[in-house]
Amino acid sequence: MSLPYRHIALIGLGLIASSIAHAARRAGFEGRITGTARSAETRAEAARLNLCEVCDTPEDAARGADLVILCVPVGAMGAVAQRIAPVLAPGTTLSDVGSVKARVIEEVGPHVPEGVHFVPSHPIAGTEQSGPASGFAELFDNRWCLFTPLEGGDPQAVADLRAFWEGLGARTEAMDAAHHDLALAVTSHAPHLIAYTMVGVADDMRRVTEQEVINYSAAGFRDFTRIAASDPTMWRDVFLNNREATLEILGRFTEELFALQRAIRTGDGDHLHAYFTRTRAIRRGIIDAGQDIGAPDFGRAVARKTGDRT
Amino acid sequence: MSLPYRHIALIGLGLIASSIAHAARRAGFEGRITGTARSAETRAEAARLNLCEVCDTPEDAARGADLVILCVPVGAMGAVAQRIAPVLAPGTTLSDVGSVKARVIEEVGPHVPEGVHFVPSHPIAGTEQSGPASGFAELFDNRWCLFTPLEGGDPQAVADLRAFWEGLGARTEAMDAAHHDLALAVTSHAPHLIAYTMVGVADDMRRVTEQEVINYSAAGFRDFTRIAASDPTMWRDVFLNNREATLEILGRFTEELFALQRAIRTGDGDHLHAYFTRTRAIRRGIIDAGQDIGAPDFGRAVARKTGDRT
Ligand SMILES: NC(=O)c1ccc[n+]([C@@H]2O[C@H](COP(=O)([O-])OP(=O)(O)OC[C@H]3O[C@@H](n4cnc5c(N)ncnc54)[C@H](OP(=O)(O)O)[C@@H]3O)[C@@H](O)[C@H]2O)c1
Ligand SMILES: NC(=O)c1ccc[n+]([C@@H]2O[C@H](COP(=O)([O-])OP(=O)(O)OC[C@H]3O[C@@H](n4cnc5c(N)ncnc54)[C@H](OP(=O)(O)O)[C@@H]3O)[C@@H](O)[C@H]2O)c1
Repeated sequence: MSLPYRHIALIGLGLIASSIAHAARRAGFEGRITGTARSAETRAEAARLNLCEVCDTPEDAARGADLVILCVPVGAMGAVAQRIAPVLAPGTTLSDVGSVKARVIEEVGPHVPEGVHFVPSHPIAGTEQSGPASGFAELFDNRWCLFTPLEGGDPQAVADLRAFWEGLGARTEAMDAAHHDLALAVTSHAPHLIAYTMVGVADDMRRVTEQEVINYSAAGFRDFTRIAASDPTMWRDVFLNNREATLEILGRFTEELFALQRAIRTGDGDHLHAYFTRTRAIRRGIIDAGQDIGAPDFGRAVARKTGDRT
Repeated sequence: MSLPYRHIALIGLGLIASSIAHAARRAGFEGRITGTARSAETRAEAARLNLCEVCDTPEDAARGADLVILCVPVGAMGAVAQRIAPVLAPGTTLSDVGSVKARVIEEVGPHVPEGVHFVPSHPIAGTEQSGPASGFAELFDNRWCLFTPLEGGDPQAVADLRAFWEGLGARTEAMDAAHHDLALAVTSHAPHLIAYTMVGVADDMRRVTEQEVINYSAAGFRDFTRIAASDPTMWRDVFLNNREATLEILGRFTEELFALQRAIRTGDGDHLHAYFTRTRAIRRGIIDAGQDIGAPDFGRAVARKTGDRT
């Protein structure tokens, strides 16, 4: 299968960019992949990993590419776009993988030169790890990559980029940016803030030791710690740039939490039981849609069997 | 290795009881294992699975056993203990695996006959699945089983039961019941309520469709759905019976969540970044303690590679 570009430039070389590079090669892409990162360390690591042709500056990486993908934290997108804008030739597709769309469009949009096609996108796939060594070719397999195309944009540029992401293993869907940001506040942004908060509370408890929190974390809490191990810069930028939707969902969450707390306080077991029964259906849907595996405990039990005993 | 009992009775035949049966056999236990469940369906399923000698009543299951373990939801412990009390011979050890300890001690304690050793315990191990078919021998491997022994109880009975759980693969620790209930409110009960709440909020959203919630759940939310797929009866009973500690932790959680919401609203990125950095250390500790695996995404990526594509 051939991807509809000759030269891909990746600005930022973390989890998403490195996964794009691996997945493109797996798809048979034989053109150039150039890339750059902010720090010399990350660039050196990417070079050592043979991830792509590593350039010292975003301008050098972007020059001559027919697809440039911004793979930096959401808060850095505008500045990076401004910097590379002068080297983008007409006909180039400029995209990004930011987890927030309306704000990125606001920040990047004004810098896009005449004749360059800006096609914002967001692959709904990730892990809690970051950096150039964390990527893998399968990351996007069977995951959704959402597109929030600009009004009046070039339909062919959007179609090509969708074909590209499908070549990387993803399914694609288009929607408007505000809807994207609300949907993601529900499925990703609010859950991350909640997980960070709960882990913070545990860390703060003086009457329960840290070692107890660690040892007795089997049920529930350790899943939160995985989520809360995600990159602090990426997530700071997500919350600051998807403020309204995140705060709206958190407001709803707090309301519901208060209702459940009241049920606990008043001993309303029927309310609790009914609530806990209703939430099971969504899990079933997620497994049926191939977005998670049905093995108990994410199949972690298997890993445990072969793990070291202390 | 030999377990210090001849005849084990399991009252309730769900995830925990069936895992005990498998783990005891793996440990070389050759004595009798009798058991019973509330419904004829569960008893029939357990018999079909050859889990143990299935009896029609708790009394029949408990009669003659030197170790009786109550494996029913926390709210049912008292009634079950009352029912089997008349058949327990002096010298028998009566234990339970309830996720809450102070309340179970209050409810079961008064029914324990003279000469019977009541040793409350709680294996910190589970999955979101339930029923007699969900158990497996490795469930307790390298997990902690907590003991909350009664004052003035028989030390040898406690030592024997600790040896039993160590034979099943667990590590053991003793503490007082109130401390247990607070620690578990942090590591398990509050996180479960929070996960149920977040999944409930998603389910309620009218502006984001259920299919969107399902499809875009890759990052964060789908981990919550696993937790929120746990048994409604078990969890209703946990919250109603560990009310004070759960509400205390939820109160702390809400305070912290409000502080983080304020940081988002006021754009205080430094506060967010510092908070998100601090929570990473606990994750490291959990992995180092062998309580989770360090593979990205719980190693789910591997399952994905071999999964069906649609
Ligand atoms: N991780 C996920 O789960 C996920 C999923 C979907 C989308 N996304 C989005 O994908 C983007 C990248 O995320 P990632 O997980 O790949 O992050 P990552 O692994 O942390 O990598 C980020 C990259 O951006 C560079 N960078 C950071 N700040 C920069 C700045 N101010 N100017 C220029 N370059 C900068 C970093 O360079 P240095 O290493 O030199 O600092 C690094 O190469 C983010 O917008 C994120 O919202 C993430
Ligand atoms: N699952 C976990 O993660 C976990 C971890 C540690 C401890 N625990 C504790 O272990 C205990 C059992 O949990 P589990 O996960 O094994 O539950 P489960 O798979 O749902 O099984 C519960 C068993 O108890 C029986 N039962 C339910 N209500 C009863 C009643 N009113 N009277 C008599 N029997 C009744 C059920 O019989 P039917 O099938 O006929 O209804 C079933 O056999 C609970 O106290 C729980 O707090 C659970």
